[in-house]
Amino acid sequence: MKLLFLTLATTVLLMTSAAAEAPYRHVVFFKFKDTATPEQVQTIEKAFIELAKKIDTVEAFEWGTNVSPENLNDGFTHCFFVTFANKAGLETYLPHPSHQSFVAQLKPILDKVCVLDYVAK
Amino acid sequence: MKLLFLTLATTVLLMTSAAAEAPYRHVVFFKFKDTATPEQVQTIEKAFIELAKKIDTVEAFEWGTNVSPENLNDGFTHCFFVTFANKAGLETYLPHPSHQSFVAQLKPILDKVCVLDYVAK
Repeated sequence: MKLLFLTLATTVLLMTSAAAEAPYRHVVFFKFKDTATPEQVQTIEKAFIELAKKIDTVEAFEWGTNVSPENLNDGFTHCFFVTFANKAGLETYLPHPSHQSFVAQLKPILDKVCVLDYVAK
Repeated sequence: MKLLFLTLATTVLLMTSAAAEAPYRHVVFFKFKDTATPEQVQTIEKAFIELAKKIDTVEAFEWGTNVSPENLNDGFTHCFFVTFANKAGLETYLPHPSHQSFVAQLKPILDKVCVLDYVAK
């Protein structure tokens, strides 16, 4: 009985641990306004890179511009892929003054944005 | 002079190697038709997981459903995140019979799709 309990307890612990380790992904697509200059776009790219360094809960960050040959990008040109350990990481990030300041800097030249978050399976 | 040449050659080698290692990401958002049943959606989720196993050039695969609190997902509910070593990996994947068959299975219940590929920086 004790062994069964121990086995069950270990299983629950492992499952909890696995759930805690599933990365929390924050996927952001941008389409800039046609009037945005290459310099303005580059400033935002750099600002996003810097933003990711400023907020401790960002565990990984990468980005790139669209190279898909499928023409299914609906005008979006940029993808930023931000990883948090969990939902709490994102909840620290979103209202963070550095993030808010970045959004304010971005908005004047942004045409549209699409954001999906998912817990990686 | 020989040292300069060696240094330059090493630098070029390192840069080439770094470029070859930058993962090629294929980011896919789905919104299913309102008429799609949960069972039909689950069948597609499983089919995508199986598809990733069938094509050798898929180096990594993960997916999840939207949990973003920002409401900027434009109706998209699913993100599939596929990694290739390079562009050639994607070029093997797209026309692959298993991918074509998956797309044919998907289309009847798909409302819209958005795809961005990027070389991770």
